[in-house]
Amino acid sequence: MQQPRNRQFTLAARPNGPARLNDFSLVESEVPALGDGQVLVRNTLFSIDPYQRNLMGNGSSEWPTIAIGEPMGGPTIAVVEGSKNPKFGVGDHVQTWTGWQDFAVSDGSDLRKLDPNAAPLSTALGPLGLTGFTAWYGLTRVHDFKPGGTLVVTGAAGSVGSMVVQLAKRRGLRVVGIAGGPEKTAWLTKTLGADEAVDYKADEFEAQLERALPDGMDALFENVGGPIFPVLMEHFNQHAKMTICGTISDYSEAEPPQGTNYLPRLISLIHYRFISIKAFATPYVMDTFPDFLAEVTPLVANGEVIYGEEYVDGFSELPATLLKLFGGKRSGKKLIVRND
Amino acid sequence: MQQPRNRQFTLAARPNGPARLNDFSLVESEVPALGDGQVLVRNTLFSIDPYQRNLMGNGSSEWPTIAIGEPMGGPTIAVVEGSKNPKFGVGDHVQTWTGWQDFAVSDGSDLRKLDPNAAPLSTALGPLGLTGFTAWYGLTRVHDFKPGGTLVVTGAAGSVGSMVVQLAKRRGLRVVGIAGGPEKTAWLTKTLGADEAVDYKADEFEAQLERALPDGMDALFENVGGPIFPVLMEHFNQHAKMTICGTISDYSEAEPPQGTNYLPRLISLIHYRFISIKAFATPYVMDTFPDFLAEVTPLVANGEVIYGEEYVDGFSELPATLLKLFGGKRSGKKLIVRND
Repeated sequence: MQQPRNRQFTLAARPNGPARLNDFSLVESEVPALGDGQVLVRNTLFSIDPYQRNLMGNGSSEWPTIAIGEPMGGPTIAVVEGSKNPKFGVGDHVQTWTGWQDFAVSDGSDLRKLDPNAAPLSTALGPLGLTGFTAWYGLTRVHDFKPGGTLVVTGAAGSVGSMVVQLAKRRGLRVVGIAGGPEKTAWLTKTLGADEAVDYKADEFEAQLERALPDGMDALFENVGGPIFPVLMEHFNQHAKMTICGTISDYSEAEPPQGTNYLPRLISLIHYRFISIKAFATPYVMDTFPDFLAEVTPLVANGEVIYGEEYVDGFSELPATLLKLFGGKRSGKKLIVRND
Repeated sequence: MQQPRNRQFTLAARPNGPARLNDFSLVESEVPALGDGQVLVRNTLFSIDPYQRNLMGNGSSEWPTIAIGEPMGGPTIAVVEGSKNPKFGVGDHVQTWTGWQDFAVSDGSDLRKLDPNAAPLSTALGPLGLTGFTAWYGLTRVHDFKPGGTLVVTGAAGSVGSMVVQLAKRRGLRVVGIAGGPEKTAWLTKTLGADEAVDYKADEFEAQLERALPDGMDALFENVGGPIFPVLMEHFNQHAKMTICGTISDYSEAEPPQGTNYLPRLISLIHYRFISIKAFATPYVMDTFPDFLAEVTPLVANGEVIYGEEYVDGFSELPATLLKLFGGKRSGKKLIVRND
């Protein structure tokens, strides 16, 4: 009787640019032995997702990568083949993070038990796995996307994007999906229920977008990044909100953008470091002015904050004084013109 | 006896690029007559602020501009010369928005009465006016800047920046100020109490910045924009927060940046439209996964959301299947590899 062997695809090399087949090695070893408290799982389904390129390293990602020689990572559906853990029994269906190998042992903490009667097992890799979760989290927990506003979704025909479209429609948003080619855009509107779909590969992309956004864009769910973002950003309405959950267009870029084109770099930094950027302008927030005065007036009155003032005499000096601000030569004192 | 006249600087032309003296006209007219409920004010001090360039139009700003022929706008300190409004008496000191003219009438709604004993009147144009308010609001109401983190302030020796430095120190932040020239940087650390100051005009700017940010940058209060931002952004820590309250470096730019350098354009758009951008990644937010499942499982189980799955057979197909994701040619279905 032949013993089963454990096939693994391990990382052989970090790609320079797009991943290549020979970045992986197929190796075989013995099925791992089961220790106390452990569960032996056999993987039956493997999810293939863009972020797996990031695990390989040498790309734009700043997140952890897997080591050379380690099995490629990723979520799987598995069946329990052996258990010395009271929480799991042989035959249980689980979602694992054991990656590209036939067998693996786990202490159970990273296994999610699945009920095959609740939904098809494969959905734990898709709409009920990270894919669906990504759409849900980005729509509900990052920003508060208000019903009635227009949400643009890039990569809208992708697995995350198509969930975003549907969940956003259920939340009462007007949804405009961006996808490549007439087949995908038709699917977005006719099957998924998007209000409009725009084909970024079409010659008339910008005109299509104009027509789809007569009242601008209140929210952007960005899965893609890359060259269409500068076109989209011109449509932002005031107080628009943007959620970045992926920048697949640069996952394979080994180098940050060079020269003066720093926009893709900023988008990547926001993505990998969860930077949040907001702006404000005082005319729009004057309701808080009394709170400000209550806090800062005693500081100024008691000389606890330092402020510079520079006076210029004479009404006629007003224009020249304004012009001084923009030469970059003056010190930072507050410029005040005294009337004569 | 000679009647006083009302001098006004009106907007004569919208500048192309930096403002010029001949964009203004000095005109004289009669002192406006006082109507019922109105207040007649005489301006004694005029504040000169960078945003006034935006009022002139033809710049990067997307906010309202003043009309050609109208008096130049801006905050002033004034004294009440006449009143038919029970809330104001002759001799009262007020802060107004009446701009570059000797006299103006107001219904009183835009006048802020000032107590000359609480603080010097001029402070209502500076630390107790929009300048201080801008610093306070950006530090306390836009983001929640946590004590202990490192805040970088650009334009730190400017009137807003110097208030940011001081108020941030009081909130327990470590403060690094950016300014131009050794005199300003010395003022930042020695007088205002900044922990570090970095001279953006110095040849060793990038090295100075490295030394000032050994643990990276948790927050950025951006007053300037322009070419130093791409240098600063590389220092963002995860979950860093950025507040944009001004982009003085481009106020005089008549055209959005051309070609592929869209970063300054994005920063301007965020500024003028109050766009907020956030990113997330599922490994960092898995605590909400149960909430997601509770909401979306019934939708999937009942067929209320559509999801595509595409199966590939065979463990050996894993690498090739991952590579397929990045060609841009495949449809958006979820790719799953079935083990054999």
